[in-house]
Amino acid sequence: MDDIIITEHEKPQLHRPVLIEGLPGVGNVGKIAAEHLVDELKATKFLTIQSKYLPPQVLVGDDGVLRLVGNEMYYYKRKGKTASDIIFLVGDYQGITPEGQYELSYRALQLLERHRLQRIYTLGGYGVGRIVEKPRVLGAATSAELVEEMRRHEVVFSKGEPGSGIIGASGLLLGLAGQWKVPGVCLMGETSGYFVDPKSARRVLEVLVAILDLKIGYGALEQKAQQIERLTAQFKEAEKAIADARAEDLRYIG
Amino acid sequence: MDDIIITEHEKPQLHRPVLIEGLPGVGNVGKIAAEHLVDELKATKFLTIQSKYLPPQVLVGDDGVLRLVGNEMYYYKRKGKTASDIIFLVGDYQGITPEGQYELSYRALQLLERHRLQRIYTLGGYGVGRIVEKPRVLGAATSAELVEEMRRHEVVFSKGEPGSGIIGASGLLLGLAGQWKVPGVCLMGETSGYFVDPKSARRVLEVLVAILDLKIGYGALEQKAQQIERLTAQFKEAEKAIADARAEDLRYIG
Amino acid sequence: MDDIIITEHEKPQLHRPVLIEGLPGVGNVGKIAAEHLVDELKATKFLTIQSKYLPPQVLVGDDGVLRLVGNEMYYYKRKGKTASDIIFLVGDYQGITPEGQYELSYRALQLLERHRLQRIYTLGGYGVGRIVEKPRVLGAATSAELVEEMRRHEVVFSKGEPGSGIIGASGLLLGLAGQWKVPGVCLMGETSGYFVDPKSARRVLEVLVAILDLKIGYGALEQKAQQIERLTAQFKEAEKAIADARAEDLRYIG
Amino acid sequence: MDDIIITEHEKPQLHRPVLIEGLPGVGNVGKIAAEHLVDELKATKFLTIQSKYLPPQVLVGDDGVLRLVGNEMYYYKRKGKTASDIIFLVGDYQGITPEGQYELSYRALQLLERHRLQRIYTLGGYGVGRIVEKPRVLGAATSAELVEEMRRHEVVFSKGEPGSGIIGASGLLLGLAGQWKVPGVCLMGETSGYFVDPKSARRVLEVLVAILDLKIGYGALEQKAQQIERLTAQFKEAEKAIADARAEDLRYIG
Repeated sequence: MDDIIITEHEKPQLHRPVLIEGLPGVGNVGKIAAEHLVDELKATKFLTIQSKYLPPQVLVGDDGVLRLVGNEMYYYKRKGKTASDIIFLVGDYQGITPEGQYELSYRALQLLERHRLQRIYTLGGYGVGRIVEKPRVLGAATSAELVEEMRRHEVVFSKGEPGSGIIGASGLLLGLAGQWKVPGVCLMGETSGYFVDPKSARRVLEVLVAILDLKIGYGALEQKAQQIERLTAQFKEAEKAIADARAEDLRYIG
Repeated sequence: MDDIIITEHEKPQLHRPVLIEGLPGVGNVGKIAAEHLVDELKATKFLTIQSKYLPPQVLVGDDGVLRLVGNEMYYYKRKGKTASDIIFLVGDYQGITPEGQYELSYRALQLLERHRLQRIYTLGGYGVGRIVEKPRVLGAATSAELVEEMRRHEVVFSKGEPGSGIIGASGLLLGLAGQWKVPGVCLMGETSGYFVDPKSARRVLEVLVAILDLKIGYGALEQKAQQIERLTAQFKEAEKAIADARAEDLRYIG
Repeated sequence: MDDIIITEHEKPQLHRPVLIEGLPGVGNVGKIAAEHLVDELKATKFLTIQSKYLPPQVLVGDDGVLRLVGNEMYYYKRKGKTASDIIFLVGDYQGITPEGQYELSYRALQLLERHRLQRIYTLGGYGVGRIVEKPRVLGAATSAELVEEMRRHEVVFSKGEPGSGIIGASGLLLGLAGQWKVPGVCLMGETSGYFVDPKSARRVLEVLVAILDLKIGYGALEQKAQQIERLTAQFKEAEKAIADARAEDLRYIG
Repeated sequence: MDDIIITEHEKPQLHRPVLIEGLPGVGNVGKIAAEHLVDELKATKFLTIQSKYLPPQVLVGDDGVLRLVGNEMYYYKRKGKTASDIIFLVGDYQGITPEGQYELSYRALQLLERHRLQRIYTLGGYGVGRIVEKPRVLGAATSAELVEEMRRHEVVFSKGEPGSGIIGASGLLLGLAGQWKVPGVCLMGETSGYFVDPKSARRVLEVLVAILDLKIGYGALEQKAQQIERLTAQFKEAEKAIADARAEDLRYIG
């Protein structure tokens, strides 16, 4: 079989589009953010990607109907002559091997060649190993000019963060885009890394919609965030209970 | 060498065949079920698949004669003009890498293209982590119509089961079959996942033969089930003994 | 680079050759046996195999000179018109992935196609997890006739041994040889699996030279065996000391 | 995408060049040494290698600008007609699979074919598992003559060191260079393997610059070495404190 199987549902004509990528990753921040945007903008699916670089797996819906795992592209046409249309890259998984990561990112860029991307925004989480009250949105960009532009939108560029660079599609799409001379930026919402993190995803989205001059609601995201909030509250209580118990122990011992 | 080596022993002409897949997996439910059906129907082997995606291994028979591991296809011609003939896909192993899984499933579908499959039944186990007295047969299908049809045959479609989807050939064959517009269903027998499970395989077969309007005996399967039954009885006794011993311990401590 | 790089040092004309394979494996039985035979017969190297399926490694000799790991083929021409010449396949490593195993075995058979192999003997160890005083030589063959022939040479064919079949080149060469209709047998010396085992290798060789009607000395092998014998004696003493100490403990407790 | 993507920034004409390789490895000795030499000689980057055999990762600079991980080649032209020019191979990572290791090393040699390399020096660390006060520089070479030549430059050739050979690019480049008949030597600085080791890198460089008749400063390397020296001093103190504490414990128990 072909390493990557592309199914085109539609061939949209797009005006100076930007690409927004949000695939699973740390805290699923990028996936949650990008899929929320797809829902809010009622973007249209135009392309499905299936591949042996993805897990050999089908997912089963609540109706008992199965579908092969894949990535999908959506588009959203904007009104007005000046605004860029938007393409979304979302999906169930990232490539499961380093080679698969490269091949899938490269192919996505190749597929979008004819649309002449103006810019790429990749969305992800930045795991810090502790619960974050007010997540920052960190950035990394393909040029110093873009770094400056992003700073004006509250994106934080912090020396040594992320120390290990950016692993996976959010990094590769930008790293490989140089072959097509497409500039781009990675927006990373701070997150514990312990939970899926809709709150961090919301912060990333707030920055992104300001950059792109979009208007969206956050209702669905807010609901998910509250569910997770309850979970993390329980988690913190449990942590405190354990800490208290230990202090108690030490008192007896002392 | 070719990634997949096909040896055709015969080129059968088949009437509107359905494919039944049963390869090793959870509780070996699918393999046991499909191979029992091959035996009962005295199906004819017509194709052998060897591949570098399978383990680098030969198996040694009781007579000391070895053979390379592989997958095989069998056919069974049914009497009457209306009934579908049956093709079986069985074997020693599934592909041992994700890539191998995709390639082997895709190739199997490609090989069967000329037979114009009417439907695919993939058989497997659904591991629940505890010993199951009366295994249900869960399902997942390629369309809502097929889900409805299967429900009428006591196949259970249960929201959130299997939660992680279906991994391996039983999923992939159905997920990839969309490329050939072949509908299909996965029948999963509930099983502990601790033992090979002929009882679960029998339940899957009972559902399947009802769907296909076949008649088979279960003698051989019953024997295997009784052997396993004895094993699981010992297992449960051991569990009980450990639990009793613990209770005893606690009484002393208390 | 090519997946497999072949360097031919010589193009020997061989008379009805048989292939003897001895690559690293359980107890290094096959490697020790085959390399001893190469030394004793003063066989001539005619072909080197290097490959990305082998470890990315060079070995350094006592003289400080390095060489890339590889496999090698040697030949030995026998006097007389009736006896078969011998080809040896030996080397530093087996393929390090399942795919590599298949590719290397297949290629070896392909390379030898023009020599029209009469038979293949693959040599290996059969690990039993305990120290073996008198190692048996177990067998598996490509046909029932060959099983019978081998039985007459003290090769043991024992139902259920080896239970998991034969993994690696010793199995694959025979399993794939069916494509060229070359018969073959795997000779496995019983071994603990804890040490390299020249004693087991000697037993395999004794059987093999009887089959092939060769005459060789065992001096070098005997020396290695004595070294290992001393090691295993120490091992057994240590085992006994531990067992005695435990018995002592129990007496106190009792 | 191509397995390996080459970007040539310049096509230098070089005089009888030698290749110096220093990629990440044990103690990062080779990488530190080669990159220090690149800096000191102000060598010019002429080629970038990106590949799916490297991690799917971008690195982020202190300025927030990202770049895809890769390997790079630099050249340094020497004055005078007799001296060899120098090519450097340095980078962020080595290939992350055995196959990738082979492909990247082979490709590097292929790329340099037209420069007719006179010799290859690969630089690495030799991990000994303890802190080394005066690191030796061990060697392995492609011929006995080269071993002799290196001995005259204080390179130590020690029977059984390194026992397991040389793994990775430092070995493969030399092992594969035989295909182009290019001789070479691996210089390995003794190192604990616990820390990056600029001191060991300096010793390797001292040997190398003597061989190549170069003059360089060691200021930057000295600074790094002092930082690490402080770290290892703390490490040794901690080790001693633990040992003392244990001795104390034993006294009480005794």
